[in-house]
Amino acid sequence: MIIRKLKKKDIKGFIETLSALTDVDLTEEQAIKIMKKRSTITYVGIVKRVVVATASLMIDQKFIHGGSLAGYIEDVAVNKNYQGRGFGTKIMRHLIRYAKELGCYKIMLCCKESIEPFYEKLGFKKSNSSMRLEVK
Amino acid sequence: MIIRKLKKKDIKGFIETLSALTDVDLTEEQAIKIMKKRSTITYVGIVKRVVVATASLMIDQKFIHGGSLAGYIEDVAVNKNYQGRGFGTKIMRHLIRYAKELGCYKIMLCCKESIEPFYEKLGFKKSNSSMRLEVK
Repeated sequence: MIIRKLKKKDIKGFIETLSALTDVDLTEEQAIKIMKKRSTITYVGIVKRVVVATASLMIDQKFIHGGSLAGYIEDVAVNKNYQGRGFGTKIMRHLIRYAKELGCYKIMLCCKESIEPFYEKLGFKKSNSSMRLEVK
Repeated sequence: MIIRKLKKKDIKGFIETLSALTDVDLTEEQAIKIMKKRSTITYVGIVKRVVVATASLMIDQKFIHGGSLAGYIEDVAVNKNYQGRGFGTKIMRHLIRYAKELGCYKIMLCCKESIEPFYEKLGFKKSNSSMRLEVK
């Protein structure tokens, strides 16, 4: 699997892969517009020209801990037709390595309780509570 | 309490307030450099020219949910000499209102279990698990 930053030509497969996670509801054109303006880095994993996995990394330059960087991983998804083959683990390892190279002192993410073992295998530990406010 | 975005002149009081949360270990000059380059919005609450509270808001432009925005609240702190007077609640309400105005569909944060009731009063509900990877 090749892992690289999301490009315009990946958009169709990227949307399909991300749909494994939740509703996307975007045309390819809308998704390309979003890709151009956001600061979060989105990676895709590609096998034989098919987008099979995706994960995004937000970086926050903190004031605490001597002005260190913190990484936040979001929207990890594996294409429904390619699950159970280790592609999720591979793209996660890539993001962790990249966050380390940048100098992040921690990497945080929120996940469903049922998916905790997946992240624990990657070295994550259950941390604080995750709180959510739905905005209507 | 006046609530506004962090300015250069607030840095000393801001560092003091943030120290209620964890170690800061920054000179004022280092903190000003960070302030200039980060994209996260940091707010301060000011009473009689003293920084008494702070909270930061990261915004992520999502691909999911039709390209909606998600807000992430980080580094909420009240100056040790001004705790228990409702300043934390006020600055949180300000950030929630701002995130709503921007059009965020959700606001997320991670906190210690002991602080959950504070956020529950503001409408947050305990959500997924928060996972953390320490980078060494």
